[in-house]
Amino acid sequence: MYAITIPEPGGPETLVWDEVPDPVPGTGEVLVEVVASAVNRADIMQRQGYYDPPPGASPYPGLECSGRISALGPGVSGWSVGDEVCALLAGGGYAEKVAVPAGQLLPVPEGVDLKQAAALPEVVCTVWSNVFMIAHLRPGETLLVHGGSSGIGTMAIQLGKAIGTKVAVTAGTKEKLDFCAELGADILVNYREQDFVAELKQATDGAGADVILDNMGAKYLERNVQALAANGRLAIIGMQGGVKGELNIGALLSKRAAISATSLRARPLSEKAAIVAAAREHVWPLIAQGRVRPVVDRELPMADAAQAHRVVEASEHIGKVLLVTG
Amino acid sequence: MYAITIPEPGGPETLVWDEVPDPVPGTGEVLVEVVASAVNRADIMQRQGYYDPPPGASPYPGLECSGRISALGPGVSGWSVGDEVCALLAGGGYAEKVAVPAGQLLPVPEGVDLKQAAALPEVVCTVWSNVFMIAHLRPGETLLVHGGSSGIGTMAIQLGKAIGTKVAVTAGTKEKLDFCAELGADILVNYREQDFVAELKQATDGAGADVILDNMGAKYLERNVQALAANGRLAIIGMQGGVKGELNIGALLSKRAAISATSLRARPLSEKAAIVAAAREHVWPLIAQGRVRPVVDRELPMADAAQAHRVVEASEHIGKVLLVTG
Repeated sequence: MYAITIPEPGGPETLVWDEVPDPVPGTGEVLVEVVASAVNRADIMQRQGYYDPPPGASPYPGLECSGRISALGPGVSGWSVGDEVCALLAGGGYAEKVAVPAGQLLPVPEGVDLKQAAALPEVVCTVWSNVFMIAHLRPGETLLVHGGSSGIGTMAIQLGKAIGTKVAVTAGTKEKLDFCAELGADILVNYREQDFVAELKQATDGAGADVILDNMGAKYLERNVQALAANGRLAIIGMQGGVKGELNIGALLSKRAAISATSLRARPLSEKAAIVAAAREHVWPLIAQGRVRPVVDRELPMADAAQAHRVVEASEHIGKVLLVTG
Repeated sequence: MYAITIPEPGGPETLVWDEVPDPVPGTGEVLVEVVASAVNRADIMQRQGYYDPPPGASPYPGLECSGRISALGPGVSGWSVGDEVCALLAGGGYAEKVAVPAGQLLPVPEGVDLKQAAALPEVVCTVWSNVFMIAHLRPGETLLVHGGSSGIGTMAIQLGKAIGTKVAVTAGTKEKLDFCAELGADILVNYREQDFVAELKQATDGAGADVILDNMGAKYLERNVQALAANGRLAIIGMQGGVKGELNIGALLSKRAAISATSLRARPLSEKAAIVAAAREHVWPLIAQGRVRPVVDRELPMADAAQAHRVVEASEHIGKVLLVTG
């Protein structure tokens, strides 16, 4: 088969569409013929040499895909050859075939086409596990989503609205904020021109955010703690603004607040399977009802993964950038 | 009545046993004739002028007491004049009488004498709410308790053992560590001579602590994050080692770990009542069974609160220092 390989770390041009051995599904795994994958920031870090795949994972980038099951490894039940699926991956999505633990498979939701389904697994599992399973966002609360127009952001807005919360977002352009508003976002903050703490406080009568979904890490740590409401929960899923920051424990304590930080990729199979099962139970029905949808910016041929990375690195996109085979 | 007043902030000598107006129980409150109160670090901070009582609370120190109900305010049911109780307070325990919201009352547990019951409310509610309700310590996990010989520490050790966890403690003397071992602590770390991260890792095959109960704040932040296991939870309840510290978000994220920080005193009545109800449901039976007990270092007359503060400030004690009336 062909896959995007990374002969050596570097810029987008280091991504090479090359012939490689076919993967073989192990016990409890299936082989998926990939129809589409999607770009995540982690893929860019992996390309740059900052984020090696976890032990045992495919060396090729790609944390999600959609496609058709072409073979079953030993011990797999509940899935059949020919099933149309999407999947959460530890790597290897930028390829014509990928071996996937059965616990990370999801059916293609009703009303979504097979290609577009590749935009769902990472964002749904990331948002559901962080905002709902860890931070327990509840109806009537306020959710602040940084990077509201990203793949993660567009899913967080939709899920926040679907369960009846007020949603605030930050983004860097009017066009992106307008799109967030179309998805239902109630409070729009242009982080280039406005202070999100002040805007959020003003829009919530001084209360702040009950839950914050953050991709910036250190750069926003102090202001995120300021923006939290009493009993607020800050869920960090990225460190685009740095790794180490000063934490005001006194401010956290006076609000009885909490901070969590997670990544999906490094979780053991059992935890991934539990998250995928929860996503299927709670989010898939919302998609089938048309209340939540994948947001796709554009599709590019998988062999042009370099161009897709350029788009994401320049933050030109809204929602997900897909990579399609064939 | 008489109460300990703080005419102006300062050292232990600023505590004055003085005649003051009797409190009047409001709607939903009862009046308790105090038999004993107990010293908490927050009382010392209040005396020093660093921790004002929350709005509406008694101006006198004292976050817990035991005694007898002497009057019922309007709208109280389920309690009667003459009932022997202990109670979680927002202040005012260092006094002959105190008005208490009924939701913060607890019966004196079977097998505990009335005076000793004053040692229970703060430590049981603090440990239960942080270690169990927030950090969800589960059987088979490892709990690290800083300040293992403190009132909080001695309760955390006993509750950790009662639900079947491995318990590690830090303390500053061999005598204190020996006492922790008698209560069941499995891993003993003298923080003056040993590095708790290294000791804990060694004793857990490199895994670390699933839950850490911390009273040090900034000083231990970096090492606490190092000491956490995958999916670990750091529960901060004090800042004896400072308010602001550097947080390594990358380390937190790679462990999928979480940090919470809380105080009991500032919580709204509804949250206090929920914690008190949970303590009564889950911890009171363990006390009645003799599996968990109040640990009392000494009793002093309430008028000698200054001496009690000196003992606690010098960390001469193990468990709680009681202040008794009459």
